[in-house]
Parts: sequence; C-alpha cells; structure tokens
Amino acid sequence: MFVKKVSKACLSGLKNVSGRGQVASVAAARWEKAGQVSREVWEKAGEQGMLGVMIPEEHGGIGADIFSVAVTWEEQMYSNCTGPGFSLHSDIVMPYISNYGSKGQIERFIPEMTAGKCISAIAMTEPGAGSDLQGVKTYAKKDGSDWILNGNKVFITNGWMSDLVVVVAVTNREAKSAAHGISLFLVENGMKGFQKGRKLDKIGMKAQDTAELFFEDVRLPADALLGQPNKGFYYLMNELPQERLVIAGMAIASCEFMFEETRNYVMQRKAFGKTIAHLQTVQHKLAELKTEICVGRTFVDNCLQLLAEKRLDASTASMAKYWASDLQNKVATQCLQLHGGWGYMMEYPIAKAFVDSRVQPIYGGTNEIMKELIARTIVSQN
Amino acid sequence: MFVKKVSKACLSGLKNVSGRGQVASVAAARWEKAGQVSREVWEKAGEQGMLGVMIPEEHGGIGADIFSVAVTWEEQMYSNCTGPGFSLHSDIVMPYISNYGSKGQIERFIPEMTAGKCISAIAMTEPGAGSDLQGVKTYAKKDGSDWILNGNKVFITNGWMSDLVVVVAVTNREAKSAAHGISLFLVENGMKGFQKGRKLDKIGMKAQDTAELFFEDVRLPADALLGQPNKGFYYLMNELPQERLVIAGMAIASCEFMFEETRNYVMQRKAFGKTIAHLQTVQHKLAELKTEICVGRTFVDNCLQLLAEKRLDASTASMAKYWASDLQNKVATQCLQLHGGWGYMMEYPIAKAFVDSRVQPIYGGTNEIMKELIARTIVSQN
Amino acid sequence: MFVKKVSKACLSGLKNVSGRGQVASVAAARWEKAGQVSREVWEKAGEQGMLGVMIPEEHGGIGADIFSVAVTWEEQMYSNCTGPGFSLHSDIVMPYISNYGSKGQIERFIPEMTAGKCISAIAMTEPGAGSDLQGVKTYAKKDGSDWILNGNKVFITNGWMSDLVVVVAVTNREAKSAAHGISLFLVENGMKGFQKGRKLDKIGMKAQDTAELFFEDVRLPADALLGQPNKGFYYLMNELPQERLVIAGMAIASCEFMFEETRNYVMQRKAFGKTIAHLQTVQHKLAELKTEICVGRTFVDNCLQLLAEKRLDASTASMAKYWASDLQNKVATQCLQLHGGWGYMMEYPIAKAFVDSRVQPIYGGTNEIMKELIARTIVSQN
Amino acid sequence: MFVKKVSKACLSGLKNVSGRGQVASVAAARWEKAGQVSREVWEKAGEQGMLGVMIPEEHGGIGADIFSVAVTWEEQMYSNCTGPGFSLHSDIVMPYISNYGSKGQIERFIPEMTAGKCISAIAMTEPGAGSDLQGVKTYAKKDGSDWILNGNKVFITNGWMSDLVVVVAVTNREAKSAAHGISLFLVENGMKGFQKGRKLDKIGMKAQDTAELFFEDVRLPADALLGQPNKGFYYLMNELPQERLVIAGMAIASCEFMFEETRNYVMQRKAFGKTIAHLQTVQHKLAELKTEICVGRTFVDNCLQLLAEKRLDASTASMAKYWASDLQNKVATQCLQLHGGWGYMMEYPIAKAFVDSRVQPIYGGTNEIMKELIARTIVSQN
Repeated sequence: MFVKKVSKACLSGLKNVSGRGQVASVAAARWEKAGQVSREVWEKAGEQGMLGVMIPEEHGGIGADIFSVAVTWEEQMYSNCTGPGFSLHSDIVMPYISNYGSKGQIERFIPEMTAGKCISAIAMTEPGAGSDLQGVKTYAKKDGSDWILNGNKVFITNGWMSDLVVVVAVTNREAKSAAHGISLFLVENGMKGFQKGRKLDKIGMKAQDTAELFFEDVRLPADALLGQPNKGFYYLMNELPQERLVIAGMAIASCEFMFEETRNYVMQRKAFGKTIAHLQTVQHKLAELKTEICVGRTFVDNCLQLLAEKRLDASTASMAKYWASDLQNKVATQCLQLHGGWGYMMEYPIAKAFVDSRVQPIYGGTNEIMKELIARTIVSQN
Repeated sequence: MFVKKVSKACLSGLKNVSGRGQVASVAAARWEKAGQVSREVWEKAGEQGMLGVMIPEEHGGIGADIFSVAVTWEEQMYSNCTGPGFSLHSDIVMPYISNYGSKGQIERFIPEMTAGKCISAIAMTEPGAGSDLQGVKTYAKKDGSDWILNGNKVFITNGWMSDLVVVVAVTNREAKSAAHGISLFLVENGMKGFQKGRKLDKIGMKAQDTAELFFEDVRLPADALLGQPNKGFYYLMNELPQERLVIAGMAIASCEFMFEETRNYVMQRKAFGKTIAHLQTVQHKLAELKTEICVGRTFVDNCLQLLAEKRLDASTASMAKYWASDLQNKVATQCLQLHGGWGYMMEYPIAKAFVDSRVQPIYGGTNEIMKELIARTIVSQN
Repeated sequence: MFVKKVSKACLSGLKNVSGRGQVASVAAARWEKAGQVSREVWEKAGEQGMLGVMIPEEHGGIGADIFSVAVTWEEQMYSNCTGPGFSLHSDIVMPYISNYGSKGQIERFIPEMTAGKCISAIAMTEPGAGSDLQGVKTYAKKDGSDWILNGNKVFITNGWMSDLVVVVAVTNREAKSAAHGISLFLVENGMKGFQKGRKLDKIGMKAQDTAELFFEDVRLPADALLGQPNKGFYYLMNELPQERLVIAGMAIASCEFMFEETRNYVMQRKAFGKTIAHLQTVQHKLAELKTEICVGRTFVDNCLQLLAEKRLDASTASMAKYWASDLQNKVATQCLQLHGGWGYMMEYPIAKAFVDSRVQPIYGGTNEIMKELIARTIVSQN
Repeated sequence: MFVKKVSKACLSGLKNVSGRGQVASVAAARWEKAGQVSREVWEKAGEQGMLGVMIPEEHGGIGADIFSVAVTWEEQMYSNCTGPGFSLHSDIVMPYISNYGSKGQIERFIPEMTAGKCISAIAMTEPGAGSDLQGVKTYAKKDGSDWILNGNKVFITNGWMSDLVVVVAVTNREAKSAAHGISLFLVENGMKGFQKGRKLDKIGMKAQDTAELFFEDVRLPADALLGQPNKGFYYLMNELPQERLVIAGMAIASCEFMFEETRNYVMQRKAFGKTIAHLQTVQHKLAELKTEICVGRTFVDNCLQLLAEKRLDASTASMAKYWASDLQNKVATQCLQLHGGWGYMMEYPIAKAFVDSRVQPIYGGTNEIMKELIARTIVSQN
C-alpha cells in the first residue's frame, strides 16, 4: 500500500497538488504583513483535528498514525502557506510532553494544545551557540524545590505567539559533558522575568513569528521540569529523527507544489510563438526536476515507514533532512528561473516558495551538522 | 596596468571591500520600505559626478572612460545598496540619447540626466513577450508628423520615478521581421495618456521602483523619435554588449562583497570552541568561492578592456552576463549558508545580497536567452 | 520485508559489500586482456543457476522472482567484475524469447541459454542511428516463407561470443512510422552472410566483447521470426522498463561497492600523521556520497517492487536508469579522487570501476533520450 | 597584445584547433601500447627547438619567453598527444638545474636536455606520503664528501626513460620541520643501487612512462647535490607556481581541443533527421562549455602574464591548477556524452582525452591540497 502511494504520486504527475495556493493566499498575505498568523487559525486547525494528530487519544491528542501526520505537512506545503507553525507545535513540541511529561503535565497541556488554544515552541538555539548543544549557556539553578532560570534564546519559531515554551537549559555545570547536564523545562507565557524580544525580520517565512526569548530570574516551580533532571540531552536525541523528518517531509511536498506550479506556467506561457513547454531545454529541465523529486519522495516515504516501525535512526533521518532541503532549494531556484521575470514578483506563488525554502537547510540543525552526524557512523571503527 | 589591477584585487584578498555596507544601511532600509529611493540621492549623485560618467563632456556628460564607470558599479555593490538605478540610467539609457539622439535631444536631456534631475528608464519588455523582441506589440502609428503610441510595458526599472522613458515600439507592422519595424521614442512623464502602474512587489531589490507603464493614445511629436525610424533594433543590438557588461560587472563586485562579509563572519563566529574559520570544510568552501570569484573577476575585467577598445562582441558579453550572474547566486547561496541562522535574517547584509542577487540571471535578457545567442555563433556554418 | 531490506543496507554501512573485488580479479585481468570472458565462466554460471533466473521453469529457466535476479546484478557489481554479459543475456534477451517466442523457439533456445551454452545478444543500434528506432535501416525482405536480411549493427554487447542474436529489422518500409514496420528475428552464429566485425576497443568494460555485426543476404527461415511480423516495436517497448532497471540496479550496486572500497581506503591511508578519514572534508564527502547512494538504493528497490507487481512504467524506469547511472559516475569520480594517485592506477579496483562506469549513461538509451521520454509524460495535455 | 590574443581565441570559436589529433594518432597508438614514447621523438623535439624553451640561451636552452613555452603546451594538447613528458622535462625539471645548479651542472646537463638526449624526471612523491612533503622518508646520509641515498619514490612521470632524476631527500632528520631538512640531488640512470620499478598501468596517459624508483645505498658524489644542502624545500616552493601553471595551461588547451572535436562531431552527426547540433539541449550545452572554457582561458592567460612579470604567487597558481583541471574533467565528461556510443570507443579522440584528463586533478599536488593552500591565505590573520 505504501509502495502504491508513492508510485501513484510519481505517475500521476502530481497533478492534484497545484492550484491550492491561491485559496490560502489572501489570509497569507495579511499574515505576512503582520509577521504572524491569527489565533483564530490555530483554533480552527484544532477544531478540524489538524493538531496533535499523532499524540495518543488517551493523552488528549487525535491518536492517528504518522502517515496521517504526513498528510498535514503535505497539505500545508501544497497550499504554499508556511506561516502557521503547526508541525513544530504538533510533531516536535507535543511529543516531548506526551512522551516525557507527568500525568499532570499531560492533562494540563495536551488537550489545550490539540485544541489550538495553547500555542507552543521549543527554545534550544542561543545567540552564541548555533546548532551546538555543547554551547548552551541558559542555566536553571535549583532553589529549594524551585528552579531559577536565566539566559536567552534566538530563532524561536512560534516564539512571539507561544503560550508554552520547552526550554533547554543547563542544570549541572559540573557534568563531564553538556550532554549529562541538560534539562527541559516548561515555561509559560506571563511568567515573571520571561520576556519576548522582537519578531525577527527574515528573508521569507514572513508569517511565522520567529522571536528571541529572554529569561531573567524566572522562578519555575518543581513541576515545570519535564521528565528527569539532567536527562534533557537524551530526550532531545530520541526525538531528533522525527523532527528532522518533519523538515524533509515538508521539503518534498514543497518541491511537488513548485513543480506543478511551474508545469502549469510553462504550458500556458508563450514565447517565440509557442508555449515554452515546447522548448527542449525546458522539457529536459522539467524531466530532471521531476526525477529528483520522485527519487526524494520515495526516500522520505520510506523514512516515514521506518519511523512508523520505530526503526528510523538518527543518521538516516539526517540524510532525509539534508538531502530533501537541499533539493527544495534547487527546485525553487530552477522553477523560479522557468517563470522568467514573473518568478521574481511576490504575486507569483513560486516567489514565496523560493524565499521560504531558503531556511530549510539551516534550521533544525544545519545541513553541515547533518553531514557531521552521518559521517560519524561511516568512519567509526565498529 | 590592467593586469596589475586584477592581480591586486585577487592577491589582496579583496580586503578593502568589506564593511562599507553598514554605512549605507540606514538610508537603504528607509528606501526598501518605500519601494523607491529619494530624489535627493539622485541629485547628490549628480553633484558628485557619478552619473553619465562615460558620456562625452561635449554632450553634457562626465567624459571619463569605461574603467571609471566600472568603479561606480563596484562601489555601489560594495556598499550593498542596490536601490538607486544609476547604472541603468547612466550606462544603459543615456548612451541611446548620446549615440543616436539629435543635437536638440542631447542638449535638452543629457545635462539634466547628468545632474540627476531627469531620471530615466528604458521600456522594452511587455507582459506577453519576455526577452523576445519579436513579440513587441506596443505600436506607434504615424499621424501627420506626430506619432500615436499605444501599448504597455512591464518590469521597468526606474519606472515609477522616471521623468523620461526610452520606449521600444513597432512602427512598421508590415516589416518582414520585427527587427525591421521597430523604433525608439523618448516619452516624458506627464504626457497625456502615459500612466504608471503599481510598483511591483519583488523578492529583493526592494528599493528599486520596478513598475508597469501604460500608453493609451499618447501623442508624440516628431522630435520624440530617437534616431531613424525602423532602426530601433539595430540601436538596441549595438548597445547590448555594454548593457550586459553592467550586469556582469555588478555581479562580480557583489560576489567580492559577499565573500568579504562572510570571511569576516567566519573569522569571528565561534562554534565548538573555535572560530568556524578553523573548520576544514569552511576553509575549502572559502577557497572554492574565492577561486571562482578571481576567475570571474579576470574575465569581466578583460571584457571591460575589450569594450574600451570597442571590440567586445555580443557573444562574449552574453557569456559575462550569464556566467557572472550565475556565480553571484551561487556565492550568495553558499555565503548565506556559512552565516547559519543569521544568514536568513534581513539585518545581516548577506540576506539582502542574497535576495537582490536572484534577479540578475533573469533581467537584461534571461541567462537562457544568453545561451541561445552564444550557441548561434558556435553552430553557425561559417 | 522490502522496506527492511533497504533499511538494512543503509544502516549497516554496506559493510558486507567490500572486499569481494579481489577474489575475481585474477580471471578478470586475463579477460580484460583478451577482450572477452571465457566460455567456461558462462557454463559455470549456468550450472550454478545464475542465468535465466526470472524465466519460468516450464520454459527452461530458473523460475525465481525479480528480487533474486537483482541479487545476481548486485553480486556481480560487488565483485567489480563487469566482463560477463550475464544480465543482458538473462534479463534482457531471454525474456523476448520466453514472452514472444513460439513453443518451438522456447524449447530450442531457453534451456541452452539457462545452461550458459547458448550465449545471446540483442542487435538494435546501427552506425547511423544511435538510440533512435526511427533510424533503423537493417531490412528483412520477405522471400517466399523465408526472409532475406541485410544491414549492420554496432555496439553489440556479447556480440563477438554470441551464438544467438535477436536482430531488430524493418519488415515494412511503407509503414506510416518505423514503429509499425519493425520485426524481431533470431539469427544464429554460423548462418551464411552473418559476419562479426572486430571487438571494439573501449574506455572500460574491457572484458566485454562489444562488436559490430554485419548481415549480407542472410537467408532466415520462417521460424526465425520472433512473435508477429511488424510487432517488434511493441515488444521492445514492453521490455524497456526491465532493461532500464537492469542498468539502474547495477549502477546502485556499483556505487555501494565503490563507496565501501573508498571507506576502507581512507580509514587505512595516512597523511599528515593521521588517517585521511580524520579530515573533515573527507568525512563530509563520504556523508554526501552515502546519502545519495541510500536515496538511490531506496528508489531502485521501489522500482523493483513495482516491476514485481507489473506496475513499473517506462517513465519511472527511465528515471531510475538516468539518475542511477549519473550517480554512479559521480561516485566513481569522487571516490577515485579520494584515492589520490592510486586512484589512477589500474591495480586499484576503483580505477576499473571508474572506467566501467562511464558507459552506463550512454548505452541502453542515452540519458538524454531518457529525459525526452520522461518529459513527454510531463508536458502532454492529458 | 595579450588581451588581443585571448580575445582572438574566444571569438574565433577556437576553430583552428581541431583536427590535429589525427596527425599524431598513429605514433600515439604505438606508444600507448608500449607504455612509453620513443627516444627519437625526444631528439626530434630537441632538434626543432621544442625543449628547454624558457631556459636562457647562455645556459644552453632556447631563451624564449613563457608565452612561447605556452604554445608548446597548447600544441601538444591540440594534437591530443599526451605521451611525451616534454613539459615536465623542460618547464619543471630543467628550471631547477638552470636556477639552482652550479656552472658545472648546467654545462653538463642543460645542452643535452635541450637536445632531447638526456631525459629527466623529478622524484618527490613516496608510496606513503602523497602530496605531503612532511612525509618524505627518502634519506641521503652524508658520508665524507659523498652522500648515501636510500628510499623509494612512486608515480614518477618520465621515470622509466629518465637519464637524470632530481630526487627530493631528507638530509637533516633533526630539522625542526621537514621544510628545513630537505635537499635535492641529481641522480643519474645507471648509478649503482638505483633501480627502476615497473611502468605503472594507468587509466589513461598510457604512453607516459610513469614508474616507481628505488634507491638502495646509492653513493652520490658531492656535485650531485643541487644548490645548498637543506634548502630543497625553498627551491620547491619557488618553482611551484610555474609547475602548477603547466598543468593549468595544458588543461585549458585540452578543453579547447575537446570542445572543437565535439563541435565538429555534433555538426556532422545526424539523429531524428537532423544534425544533433540542431537540438536546443545540445546548443545550450555547447554554449555553457564554451563560456567556461573562455573564462578559464582568460584566467590562465592572465596567470601567464603574471608569471612573465614574476608576480604569480602560489595561491593564484593553485587556483589555476585546481580550477582548470576540474574544468577539463567536466568538459571531457560532457563532450564524451555528446558523442554518444562513439565517445566510449578509444578510436575517437574524445575517449583518449577523457581518460588522460582524469589524472590532472590528482598529480602536481591534488586539488584538495590546492584548496588547503588557497585557504591559508584567506583565513590568516594578517
């Protein structure tokens, strides 16, 4: 059945993908100007069962499988509407609570998150540290049963709108390595000393509220700790494969969207008396792009299957993230070029897809970090 | 001396290029928001002798050589300030008037243009025609000694601010090919029936006022015709090499700017306890980029020398345009990546350079059109 | 199970692949010098059940599935021994006889072919026609119940050693297109007027007896015709997906072989006091290569599954052929480079793998032809 | 004048280059089989003034400039005849003797070398050291006024035919770095203990006698030392820019040769009823290749000019070597592909050019080493 799905997508020329972009474009333009989406869209997504799709029903999620989740990624990309950070919320943040949270934490947050009433973020990256967990400086100091949190974070998706943030902090500065001294905390909007900085002005993803977060002597109660103390690194490692696959899955779906947009464009656009789809160079370019997209789609779908079987390892997920996000940028660049002058105009969906694509090889661990991780499994002497 | 210059640039590590971006950034940000630059900056440029540099003094220009012109391109790119369309005005539009204009036209327009008081544009591209002159539909019909102009144009740089537009129009619909029936007209802002459309919302180049222009029964006097009737195609062909070299020259200078920005960044930025300039992969990437930039710089400087000797042919200029603008995008993509998350933030100069770069392979004749032209000289049976 | 297999290959670092090259190298060197392999190796292959693996048992084949066939391709590439044209014989030629042959033809040839006693080839390409069936000039003229065959063929794998050749010939010169006038004939070694030209001197694949074939008034009996007259084009089209997948499957297996050879080399080779596997640039290169190979492996295995289900279409098979053979050359080039000077020496397996790789994007329909075919399905207006 | 030359080459479509390959092909084929060229061709080259072109007349050379030398490189590549190691002999080995040799050494060797009667080689690389001078183990021990040489070398061009070898050896094992303890020696064929190993079997360059050399207690007289003891590293560094430019110059000339071969091929070869030069994809490919070749030609010619002015630094020469040799392989791969099946057959010049090209990014310092050297000048904190 899995194979059938892939094959169908490849063979059908991905035709049903295109055109959805227009539907969402009015709201998207408003959100882009505002630098964030509306709270309403979060709640509507919740009502329609689009949030927390993979979180068990007994925890307050939808209780469906990873393939259903993948459909939400795909549909969002097929609509070219990157603003709402649903996947980060549902498929990256919520699993931490569902997998490592206490009964109380689960009961308190998951239903609200599934309803789109509690918007979440995860705060890992710091101004001086990039993708390097060894460089985390944010520190939570034990004070009786409480913790006192200090530090600041940057590039936090959903950061401005967030009601709840999973914050990565050092809790044991004497640990032999950072990996042994990191914990995760649930920090809520409105807590004293927690401030949100400006929304960052980005190349694209303009409707996404990426922000800096500042923590100054934020007092956290004992039940703000997620899971065990000093186990944060292991929790992060466990969740990484799925996090990376979110990016890969969205990358391939974006490729499919851009390809179909472009196919339609070149079959209508005329130059020198014929549609440009008649030009041999255009045809070969389309053939090359479609081939790479089908190859990538097959790989990502295979990774989904492995994830469903709990067999997706970090190295393979890193491959998917790096390869698919690089492909997305290649497809974006070339599809834009096939649009000629219109490709550079924001009114065409390809323009937005191009600027949105550029962040994918950077966040979620840069593609260079992915290569480091993959390489380790290759040259280790086991 | 020419060789010395190239070598110096290569050997010095282009060090003096970097850092100028900050100076211009305040005004640039204001212009980006406005979608156009100020009239003042045009007049200041005129006062400082930066406009019409290559136009003969006796016509009212500065009377310097192409190498001096190239310095203006380079300095503009080194300041990362792409808004003001000086080069289009000075090095692409003004030569039409200086080379093909009547004494009256020259006396009337060139001094004002050199002073930055008359801002100019050239209107070639039409909504349905792209880079294809055969597809021009704008039509100027003879009416006594006057002409009646109808049609519309798109993607016109300096279009919104323009006081004077060189308009490409069909004057002989019976000509055996479009090439034999095209003329150039000087159309002035405020003429009845000449309307400017919206400023187009672009991926980058946001301070540049790219606009659509509409001509509806615009009555042009006899002296609005530039040069001979039906000779427009030849004039356009004559000026093409220089026009393409403008793009190539700015592309290479932009590469040099981006490289130095990035070199500085990686030598300061730390990860895993050292600057990222210590990483071997970063070093090899820098070596590859610098090599390509030096190779490209040498080629463009050689083209400048050929242009100075009036020996730059269309095919070689097309090579420079296509190769250098592709390189610019490659450098932009990779230098941005070396900035990590900050590369995606508009506050970093590399982000602006990246989005600005993307139009270069498209305008001035797409790079695909360049390849068509180059190929013709290769496979012709002479 | 299919998914498991892919995953295992990826995750295990392909470790069990490497090292088999040495085993076969002595015979291979002798064959390379001779420009052909021995008859003995064909017969041994037959004895061990390596020929005609997918041909039904009731026809005299082995009667296994396509996955078993794929193992024979992989093992041959893992041994870096490209000389014996087993896959062409078993998986490209034999199916024509098994699928379209008469009971008499099947009984006469298949058992001998399965035993490796009758070596076969297919003769499609002509000196002036390349991959273009429209250009076939070889002509079989009806003469009573016989046919008189004239023409010549080039680049015929197994051509020199062949006992039986499936020859593509025009039988109806008045057909509205070549596609409607082509037939297939079984031509046997020793027939009067059938001559084999020299073995061609190639860049690599030196143990493979690629030859030119000449037919001068060769009289063929009625039962030399394979299937129906003038149906040859349809038979060829039907078999194409499998033929292309043979190349793709061997390409990916060769990638895996080259990768493991190289991984072993860089982990032993020292420079600057450490193994070169310690260099970050080498590690990232390996990570990139392995990622592409895993992505390609997944796609090819998916195609195998589709073929097993009789759902592999021509366009998807063309994607696999072109993408995998291009990858093979990229991997060959880069793995060779990682070997330094030794990479250029024929005594290292990577050198042989490099020169052998170069033909893969050319034969079996050039990769440019693949793109033509893929493009047709993209731009057709269905 | 220099600029004119470049321009002429670009503009003329390099037309006069093609076709010379056939002339030399008969002898070349014989040499390829023998694994070495004839002594006669060396002497004929000497008679015609093709050896030692840049060596001063007063030393016994021809006394011409670097531009004349470049012509010899170009003509050799235009004839596709890579066998004779003239450039290594004339432009890499002879300068060591002319620049650092004693009057006696110059008088004894230079005239014989200019006459092609004394064939020379340089022995730097060792089996375990690659391009790394720190790894040289060959050791010359002082013994009275003599030296006792032990060690072995590999990948030595002209090694089998050599009458004279410049050998790089350690003379001071206590030096703080290898750079301070290396000397150069003139070792002559026939000296006791000096043995030549087998000619290495290579992917291409088959007429070039690449060999291993073994030195076992070879007693060298005092006047076998070239220049000062322990100064070898500096001599090697001084000569590097010219050595790298030899490779770059030959690479670009080879590109020009391959391009013209291919241009001719596609203008004659028919497919689908027209020459393949009519296909748009072929035309764009040719346009891309020619552009890159013209860009590279301009850079290499600029380096020649810098060398003539003694201003070519190591970093710029490394750029030329790495970029041009990579281009050569790209051009070879793509031009071969444009030949279809014939491209894989050794009877076509492109096939030989392809296999010969592959060594260029490896020898003379691998391209990876070039990037290391270039990078050092970029990230150093001066």
